[in-house]
Amino acid sequence: MEKKNIILIFLFLTCGSLSIYAQQVVPASRFEIQGRPFDNTPKFHRIDTAKYIGLPAAVKKLYTHAAGLFVTFKSNTSKLSLRWKTVDAGLGNNSTPIMSRGFDAYIKEVNGWRFAGVARPDLKNMESTATVVEDMAKTEKEFLLYFPLYKELLDFDVIIDENASFIDTKQSFDKTIVIYGSSIVHGASASRPGLAYPAQLGRKLNANVINMGVSGNARMEPAVADMLSDIGSADLIIMDCVPNSSPEEIKERTFNFVKRLRKSHPQTPILMVESITRQLGNYNLKWRARLIEQNTNFRLQYERLQQAGYKNLYYIPTDHLIGDDSEGTVDGTHPTDVGFERMLKIIGNKVEVIF
Amino acid sequence: MEKKNIILIFLFLTCGSLSIYAQQVVPASRFEIQGRPFDNTPKFHRIDTAKYIGLPAAVKKLYTHAAGLFVTFKSNTSKLSLRWKTVDAGLGNNSTPIMSRGFDAYIKEVNGWRFAGVARPDLKNMESTATVVEDMAKTEKEFLLYFPLYKELLDFDVIIDENASFIDTKQSFDKTIVIYGSSIVHGASASRPGLAYPAQLGRKLNANVINMGVSGNARMEPAVADMLSDIGSADLIIMDCVPNSSPEEIKERTFNFVKRLRKSHPQTPILMVESITRQLGNYNLKWRARLIEQNTNFRLQYERLQQAGYKNLYYIPTDHLIGDDSEGTVDGTHPTDVGFERMLKIIGNKVEVIF
Repeated sequence: MEKKNIILIFLFLTCGSLSIYAQQVVPASRFEIQGRPFDNTPKFHRIDTAKYIGLPAAVKKLYTHAAGLFVTFKSNTSKLSLRWKTVDAGLGNNSTPIMSRGFDAYIKEVNGWRFAGVARPDLKNMESTATVVEDMAKTEKEFLLYFPLYKELLDFDVIIDENASFIDTKQSFDKTIVIYGSSIVHGASASRPGLAYPAQLGRKLNANVINMGVSGNARMEPAVADMLSDIGSADLIIMDCVPNSSPEEIKERTFNFVKRLRKSHPQTPILMVESITRQLGNYNLKWRARLIEQNTNFRLQYERLQQAGYKNLYYIPTDHLIGDDSEGTVDGTHPTDVGFERMLKIIGNKVEVIF
Repeated sequence: MEKKNIILIFLFLTCGSLSIYAQQVVPASRFEIQGRPFDNTPKFHRIDTAKYIGLPAAVKKLYTHAAGLFVTFKSNTSKLSLRWKTVDAGLGNNSTPIMSRGFDAYIKEVNGWRFAGVARPDLKNMESTATVVEDMAKTEKEFLLYFPLYKELLDFDVIIDENASFIDTKQSFDKTIVIYGSSIVHGASASRPGLAYPAQLGRKLNANVINMGVSGNARMEPAVADMLSDIGSADLIIMDCVPNSSPEEIKERTFNFVKRLRKSHPQTPILMVESITRQLGNYNLKWRARLIEQNTNFRLQYERLQQAGYKNLYYIPTDHLIGDDSEGTVDGTHPTDVGFERMLKIIGNKVEVIF
């Protein structure tokens, strides 16, 4: 997919300037979408929702969000811009628009990916145009673009210098990790897409991390277990699905959920992670009691699975996951980048031990 | 200001419920506003903009934002809610609505303030009502409420249980620190008001930290130096005003700015902080060069001041201020909570040495 194949040339007048820039527009169709659980899902969805009709409606909708998806390419452009469209312009009050509707760009260095810039969404329109980074040296670089985490992405164009090179690339990874979980896995409230903990774990371990987070959900429904079982090549499955599951759901569903995954993945390590200690429970006694009950029930099911002879199961308790100073969340529930940094240290270390 | 003095009783029907709750509404007028540079500023403004008519218009407007202001009170309420109004509902795309338009609550413990909850703003209306924390034990606690950082606050009511106690309180501090700076001091992009670095510094050192941050500004104008000189009781003045000042402005204004502050504050330590290494400059060569020039010029002015005999000047270079892994900002310019945590460690340690 060389530059010469890119035939669209786009002329536009930049605001506040009389200069006319000639630029290359590289449409989404030119890229191989990476980070997906399945090949050939429609649009930028994580799953084919028409195939998994038994999933709860909310879960189906959430899997249309492009969390964890990304593209990589090489170019010697001096400027990188994006034009893109999300399904709506709504926002959460506990997160940044860049995280929910923006893009996050990194550039490959010898020691890993380095932050390059973000594409800030237009707050009033579904369609946005933004410069990610400009005034770069015209040397060839490999770019990584993380997709918006919390809004369905409808389309995007990458815009580079008129004469810049362009090669779509695909990353090789050492391992594939599937993370099933709640809003916290989905990415709330990282400040930008690349700081969601699955994305950070991927960079840290050079792993293909499949983000199967579903905000406000992850209640271990049987239909979800069936769907996750279809993901073929997992070297590790992380279950971070306690936060929104009631104590009763955890008691009733955990065993069968793992049993179903074991049927399709007989040897794959499964890492069960307790809910982070949501700091709403610092003073809300009901939340505090509920959290203890959720985590206690999860641990009991882990022990039950072990007693039933299930192997390759690992467990992370809630202790210290987001630190002990009460400053790791934006709202008492969702980790900030500080909370994620702390989670990542504990979860990342555990994953390295498992591997 | 005992509970018996609070005569407003407010009955409302909670959404989705037939229960009627009787609650006390404590209006803003019952609270002593803390964290202000001057007594008796209008509304919840940081300065009396009518008095400082020579300030740039943008700076005047920014000092109507309640950044750094807070109230404290004791109550044995089981539920804390807020009803409040900000001047508009606009948002930044690189920050959370909770930071710009919400409140952040802490509760005093023997070892310091502990996070209790946030008041999430309504994204479509200027007026919001939100529960901060509920289902608390009915023991007396001391609450700290940080005000929204980035939108002018017009009014607020604190809502507690009908029969709960209420005492407005005022904190005693060991020191007063004035921080003059850009959006970074103002609070972008902390995830919530209590995580702005001036607020964190205040909790860390039990200091009365006066947030004089002005987003997109802090260019050391003479009128600003005059205004800051009127703040009487500073034990330390921090100048974190490099980011938006051009290299030329830094060269031309720094000396006179310090000279003016010295006239009113002959002995007060002044800590000059270089701009954080904005990661937009990872690949944007112009940004990188500009940053180096800004910081170089600031250091030259620091040295010039020393050579001119100015004493009690301290300096922090940009090195490591937001870490070295390129993950400390949301957009290449504004620190996330991770960036602020790193800045706070360096700045906080330096301040402890000065004191």
